[in-house]
Amino acid sequence: MKLQGQEEYEASSAHENVSAGELESDHGPSHSPGSSSETDSRELGVCTDPPLFIQLNELLGWPEALEWRETGRWMLFEEKLEVDAGRWSAPHVPTLALPSLQHLRSLLVKGLVLLDCPARNLLELVEQVIRVESLSPELRGQLQALLLQRPQHHIQTRTWPCWGSTPPKKVPHNENVPLKEQHQNPLRQKLPPEAEVATVLAGELGFLPQPLGAFVRLRDPVVLGTLTEVPLPSRFFCLLLGPAMPGRGYHEMGRAAAVLLSDPQFQWSVRRASNLHDLLAALDAFLEEVTVLPPGRWDPTARILPPKCLSSQHKRSLSRKREVEGFSTRRMAGAEDRRGPGPQVPCPELQRTGRLFGGLVQDVNRKASWYTTDFLDALHPQCFSAVLYIYLATVTNAITFGGLLGDATDGAQGVLESFLGTAVAGAAFCLLAGQPLTILSSTGPVLVFERLLFSFSRDHNLDYLPFRLWVGIWVATFCLVLVATEASVLVRYFTRFTEEGFCALISFIFIYDALGKMVNLTHAYPIQRPGFPGYGCFCQYPDPQGNESQWATTKQKNRDDILSMDLGLVNASLLPPSECTQQGGQPRGPGCHTVPDIAFFSLLLFLTSFFFATAFKHVKTSSFFPSVVRKVLSDFSSVLAILLGCGLDAFLGLATPKLTVPTEFKPTLPGRGWLVSPFGANPWWLSVAAALPALLLTILIFMDQQITAVILNRAEYKLQKGAGFHLDLFCVAVLILLTSALGLPWYVSATVISLAHMDSLRRESRVCAPGEAPSFLGIREQRLTGLVVFILTGFSIFLAPVLKFIPMPVLYGIFLYMGVAALSSIQFVKRVQLLLMPAKHQPDLMLLRHVPLNRVHLFTAIQLVCLVAGLGGCPKGTRVVLLATGTPLAG
Amino acid sequence: MKLQGQEEYEASSAHENVSAGELESDHGPSHSPGSSSETDSRELGVCTDPPLFIQLNELLGWPEALEWRETGRWMLFEEKLEVDAGRWSAPHVPTLALPSLQHLRSLLVKGLVLLDCPARNLLELVEQVIRVESLSPELRGQLQALLLQRPQHHIQTRTWPCWGSTPPKKVPHNENVPLKEQHQNPLRQKLPPEAEVATVLAGELGFLPQPLGAFVRLRDPVVLGTLTEVPLPSRFFCLLLGPAMPGRGYHEMGRAAAVLLSDPQFQWSVRRASNLHDLLAALDAFLEEVTVLPPGRWDPTARILPPKCLSSQHKRSLSRKREVEGFSTRRMAGAEDRRGPGPQVPCPELQRTGRLFGGLVQDVNRKASWYTTDFLDALHPQCFSAVLYIYLATVTNAITFGGLLGDATDGAQGVLESFLGTAVAGAAFCLLAGQPLTILSSTGPVLVFERLLFSFSRDHNLDYLPFRLWVGIWVATFCLVLVATEASVLVRYFTRFTEEGFCALISFIFIYDALGKMVNLTHAYPIQRPGFPGYGCFCQYPDPQGNESQWATTKQKNRDDILSMDLGLVNASLLPPSECTQQGGQPRGPGCHTVPDIAFFSLLLFLTSFFFATAFKHVKTSSFFPSVVRKVLSDFSSVLAILLGCGLDAFLGLATPKLTVPTEFKPTLPGRGWLVSPFGANPWWLSVAAALPALLLTILIFMDQQITAVILNRAEYKLQKGAGFHLDLFCVAVLILLTSALGLPWYVSATVISLAHMDSLRRESRVCAPGEAPSFLGIREQRLTGLVVFILTGFSIFLAPVLKFIPMPVLYGIFLYMGVAALSSIQFVKRVQLLLMPAKHQPDLMLLRHVPLNRVHLFTAIQLVCLVAGLGGCPKGTRVVLLATGTPLAG
Repeated sequence: MKLQGQEEYEASSAHENVSAGELESDHGPSHSPGSSSETDSRELGVCTDPPLFIQLNELLGWPEALEWRETGRWMLFEEKLEVDAGRWSAPHVPTLALPSLQHLRSLLVKGLVLLDCPARNLLELVEQVIRVESLSPELRGQLQALLLQRPQHHIQTRTWPCWGSTPPKKVPHNENVPLKEQHQNPLRQKLPPEAEVATVLAGELGFLPQPLGAFVRLRDPVVLGTLTEVPLPSRFFCLLLGPAMPGRGYHEMGRAAAVLLSDPQFQWSVRRASNLHDLLAALDAFLEEVTVLPPGRWDPTARILPPKCLSSQHKRSLSRKREVEGFSTRRMAGAEDRRGPGPQVPCPELQRTGRLFGGLVQDVNRKASWYTTDFLDALHPQCFSAVLYIYLATVTNAITFGGLLGDATDGAQGVLESFLGTAVAGAAFCLLAGQPLTILSSTGPVLVFERLLFSFSRDHNLDYLPFRLWVGIWVATFCLVLVATEASVLVRYFTRFTEEGFCALISFIFIYDALGKMVNLTHAYPIQRPGFPGYGCFCQYPDPQGNESQWATTKQKNRDDILSMDLGLVNASLLPPSECTQQGGQPRGPGCHTVPDIAFFSLLLFLTSFFFATAFKHVKTSSFFPSVVRKVLSDFSSVLAILLGCGLDAFLGLATPKLTVPTEFKPTLPGRGWLVSPFGANPWWLSVAAALPALLLTILIFMDQQITAVILNRAEYKLQKGAGFHLDLFCVAVLILLTSALGLPWYVSATVISLAHMDSLRRESRVCAPGEAPSFLGIREQRLTGLVVFILTGFSIFLAPVLKFIPMPVLYGIFLYMGVAALSSIQFVKRVQLLLMPAKHQPDLMLLRHVPLNRVHLFTAIQLVCLVAGLGGCPKGTRVVLLATGTPLAG
Repeated sequence: MKLQGQEEYEASSAHENVSAGELESDHGPSHSPGSSSETDSRELGVCTDPPLFIQLNELLGWPEALEWRETGRWMLFEEKLEVDAGRWSAPHVPTLALPSLQHLRSLLVKGLVLLDCPARNLLELVEQVIRVESLSPELRGQLQALLLQRPQHHIQTRTWPCWGSTPPKKVPHNENVPLKEQHQNPLRQKLPPEAEVATVLAGELGFLPQPLGAFVRLRDPVVLGTLTEVPLPSRFFCLLLGPAMPGRGYHEMGRAAAVLLSDPQFQWSVRRASNLHDLLAALDAFLEEVTVLPPGRWDPTARILPPKCLSSQHKRSLSRKREVEGFSTRRMAGAEDRRGPGPQVPCPELQRTGRLFGGLVQDVNRKASWYTTDFLDALHPQCFSAVLYIYLATVTNAITFGGLLGDATDGAQGVLESFLGTAVAGAAFCLLAGQPLTILSSTGPVLVFERLLFSFSRDHNLDYLPFRLWVGIWVATFCLVLVATEASVLVRYFTRFTEEGFCALISFIFIYDALGKMVNLTHAYPIQRPGFPGYGCFCQYPDPQGNESQWATTKQKNRDDILSMDLGLVNASLLPPSECTQQGGQPRGPGCHTVPDIAFFSLLLFLTSFFFATAFKHVKTSSFFPSVVRKVLSDFSSVLAILLGCGLDAFLGLATPKLTVPTEFKPTLPGRGWLVSPFGANPWWLSVAAALPALLLTILIFMDQQITAVILNRAEYKLQKGAGFHLDLFCVAVLILLTSALGLPWYVSATVISLAHMDSLRRESRVCAPGEAPSFLGIREQRLTGLVVFILTGFSIFLAPVLKFIPMPVLYGIFLYMGVAALSSIQFVKRVQLLLMPAKHQPDLMLLRHVPLNRVHLFTAIQLVCLVAGLGGCPKGTRVVLLATGTPLAG
């Protein structure tokens, strides 16, 4: 087992390009790093050259007030000291002027090159450097004093990030050991502990008769006291001083030296250089590889942001090999990035064995070998936050879908069933499934199917739950047949077309449903237009005699109340309908049945929760607030939006429709036990006829389950423990049987929330250079986070009393948000947008560089047609099957 | 006077760097373009070298199917043919590999250089080129046939922009004249007619024994038939062919040659080169200036977008001069862009003359000399669209502010006054003012002042309009004193602090007002909570006898109507309040006075109009839709949002509060004539006391007017006819007197709409290279557009019957949008955002590169404090002055 933290350093040093083997055999620099055996070992990440941190100390203030100041630093990218503003710039791609590289080269040719210098501290190093023939003893003394002078480092201490940094304090310090502030430098945490430092000293020094260049490689790296910003051992030392030069000559030359040293290929060569010739060869090799921007087409003060992903060293050494023979082919490298339309499915799991249940047996064997580590691997603090995040998302889902299902099935399944089902099915799946990172949910097509099934059985006076039980039994049977025949290997043929089509269909069902619910709500709570008969309403007492006394009491009680105003009518009052009924009266008039303001307020709640969920989600990519705050707002966007909606609703206190919640632990449908009776009031042959809708549902479940599984098991997630397509389907089948028998909702793998689960368990390299994106190492594959999440969900049944404050429109808004969010993540939507964009404004997508626009539009159009057919046809198809099932009943 | 269109070509060729003088004196290439006399003449834009269009024809398909294909083209930036996708890429900054430039150089050294070649067509040119010693006669024949072969050009014909382009048709064509599709090439419109072409031919040709390089400069440019994409005369011809080379050597070399040729400095040199040595010197000079990106830090397939503004040739030649002596200083050039905090005010107009009305007289003299051209310069089609755009904006403003003012002054000023005042004041100002591009409006502080003045006079039972007349008289007097004493020269001391503070204050007043109006609206139309006494309502007839018959008739008419249900009450019905009153009854009960649903629906309308106005405005910068559609949606965003709001309101037909409009042409306040009587019911001394509030208003008007004038007359707008600060203030004073006497609103210059006016009259260079932003030439300074706009506004009084369909919440939403839009345009807001951003995520602003973050935050904080004080204090201060004025009244 790896030590904790070890993996991070390995990955962060993976940009180095020297293999262990190379160091052992002690190659000369003539051996180029591009040879094929090395390329292989480099790809395995076995690199031993320590990473290099480079800083430029510039000599400023000639001639009055000479001082050294660190004005630039490099790991992968350049950070420049904004001298006036007193801050480090954002990391950016360094740009050089070609002449500065050439001047550097000629200065090195004339200068001093000390390789494997045995100096053990700064004084010895300086003594070595100033032993140049051309200098007079007097100059040497001056130079030595100058070089030993303490440089100014701008160390950004960690204060509240919004308020910038405190300026560095100038404390007198004469020792040769690093200062406290050097040790406290936050930059140090970004550098791996084995990193080494290279210092470039450059500047104008008027008393020198001619430019002085020196390049030193120390034999043993030593900490050079206050010279370096971070107290790490120095390996390289480069001195570039000289008499006045036009422009900022020495500054640019110093930058050129620093950028050179930050290049991995140059580092590799210069660590192995044995003489000046090797050094110059490395510089020339660097020049062969630079990219050139023509003058006047580019503002040299503009800073190029670090690219999202760096071209790997592998590609670079390949292109270099070709370059040695002639010309650069790097421009071609992009074509290798092209991705085919099909998904990247791990193929070993999808080979047909040819035996009954052969795939299932294979899956079980494969997963069994990992079962112990599936729990041990969860012992990491990251898993706690993953549990919290996914728990809240699961509860939100359970509430939302439970509420919707309760709405759709007149309470045959309610919030309680939703919680219970989620907890039982989810926990069981996490314990037993092939891909335990999957989160089950009763979403999308299954939900739609369930609603249609319910309305069908209501229309035909069927006993819903027994009918549903038989559908479940048939579905489980069909799924087992699919498992036995290894049908899951068909997912190999799923392409981007299938995946995106299905995803878009589910998303549109979400959106359509959310909007439909809102329209239904305006029917239930109509808007009162002028002339609309909603005004008149009063309270009439059926028996003037019997109610006279009651009326009088009310009058007595609320003497000044406008409700009890004397109307001159003995048997009527203006009490609101609810109070009227309480007092034995009868509300009369068309205005009594309308609840004003609800429709528009519901719409406002709906829009509010949708917009805030979207906005909170997008906070993550904004540049406001510290990253912790951004992450919390973004991860809990749905929860926050629901809370906000509830708050707004509670503040105004209107009678909006609320979530129906059970008050005690019993099935939502009154009068049924937990176990559904197999027949109920239905005729016996319906259990056979149920096979027809079950067939349809099986197709839906197979598609939904397997497409999610394909997405979760994509190669880009670098999963180590393999997939279990057959085992997953088997588990789903068993759970459908179980939930049908208990009258709980049906569950399938949910793509979005499962992806969120995986995302919260990403392992990333912790140490990375400024400007470098952390590299992805893999997923913490284990069963514990999911299990804990669902156990917590089970206990949340007791949250029910709190849930009754959630207005339904808020949930519809979240539902809309889920649909829109899922939709915007697929390439199909980007291509639909292309349809509306003039060619000139289209983004520089890889696919547009290689596929004719007409072809792209045609592909999109075909997908659109399929989607519309699917949207129109799918529920209709379901309905046809249901009607077919019901025909014997009608006949 | 300049010919129309002439100016465009002058500007577009301004990136050329050769002066007329240089051509006449026929300098050799040893005369560098960086000398100071040339720099001056270049800045004047007097350049005569024609611009160059460069194309790369690549030889593809070796060895089977040789064909020439144009795979790249350059003007300023590179466009690459995406061969697979069959489209031109977006223009981008070209990047080269350094070795390709070096290889090109060595090929030129060994190759053929023909300067001033006398060829008159392609055949003659080819014959000249293949006359190389090293070629055998057989090879020459093959080469000649190959070079005369027709190349494939991808010509993007103009079809519906969303649907890509049709692939080029291959028609057999043997003549030496350009094809029809070459003439129809839309690229031709982007090139000035005097442009010349350079063609680079490059590719692998296996039968050549060694690489063949040729560079030809034609003595007289000739059209080379189908060789070039556009049928323009060719000047340069570069051939780079040879045996197989690793990678895409010839392609890269060809690109290097093309990029070289696209560089203005290289063009200048190569046009004047007399031998190979000059050519190589130009190439080396180019290399001295290139920017270098280190390998591995930059993805070479990424394309750099063209920068927004190119560094001017001036800066470049300056930096080059320094470079000749040593090193590049281009990196320093950015510092010159730093802008001080003060506004760029044209200073000549703001010199104190020291005489009474001296400044005014100067202004009148200056403007008088331009008066004729102020009308002639308007004869351009652009002015028509400017009139339409500004007319709609002005009418929207007049409606919005008229509506608000009517609301605020109980109809003392209404929509009619707003239209009339806008028309009269605006037209007069455009005819007479110093800066006729200014659009007057009754916005911001003046509107707030007017509202306070009204509530003050209502509270103290003053006759409003006469009181207001005296305030106006005093304001006019004070303003005349300011004009006489040339107080306007003080605007020189306005800094960014003053400007932004005032702008933020106005914006916040807009926002505060809009929100306040909405809150007031919910008070007028309360939300009906449960238990709220809004239910009971019925219709009671005072006299049972007299109304019995009426009741019966109603019953007869609406037999099935629920309204006439028999209640068993002789003297009551459930008719809605309005119908009840019509039928002589009396609505009884608390529910009769509430109008349900209005509050939330108004809120929805408010948000809708705000969001859609914002969204339509942002369409301009999105990449959807063709640019014409985007421009219309963005320019008419307010109008469209109002229309949308009206449509939504009309669709639901609720009784939302609407804009009050007059039905006939008379003052909104009943019973007053057009001329305000000087005293009315007020005591005589109030006319003296009015001087106190007038003093305050004068300060407001002076600040508002002059800050707008400063912004409009900024140097960056390149105004030719000068400003008229004194004259403008004089006009405003006279108009305040006039509008006070007529009881119309007061008017001051409005920043936002005046800027929009100027923006719609921008003159820009029409011809620009792909990827180049059109350059700004100036503003069409004239008086006609404004005049026509206000005459049209005057006629729009008859629009009144249409305006009554506009709901007030929609106008409040537009008002909010105006405030937010004005606020987001100032740097102050960007700095407030910086307060919330961690330093790491802050954008790379120039000010942050040079000013310490703490200093920036301090400046922002001081501005914030001043703003809060201003917001709290300004209306309060006004109130104090008003109260002080009223004290004698109370006493």
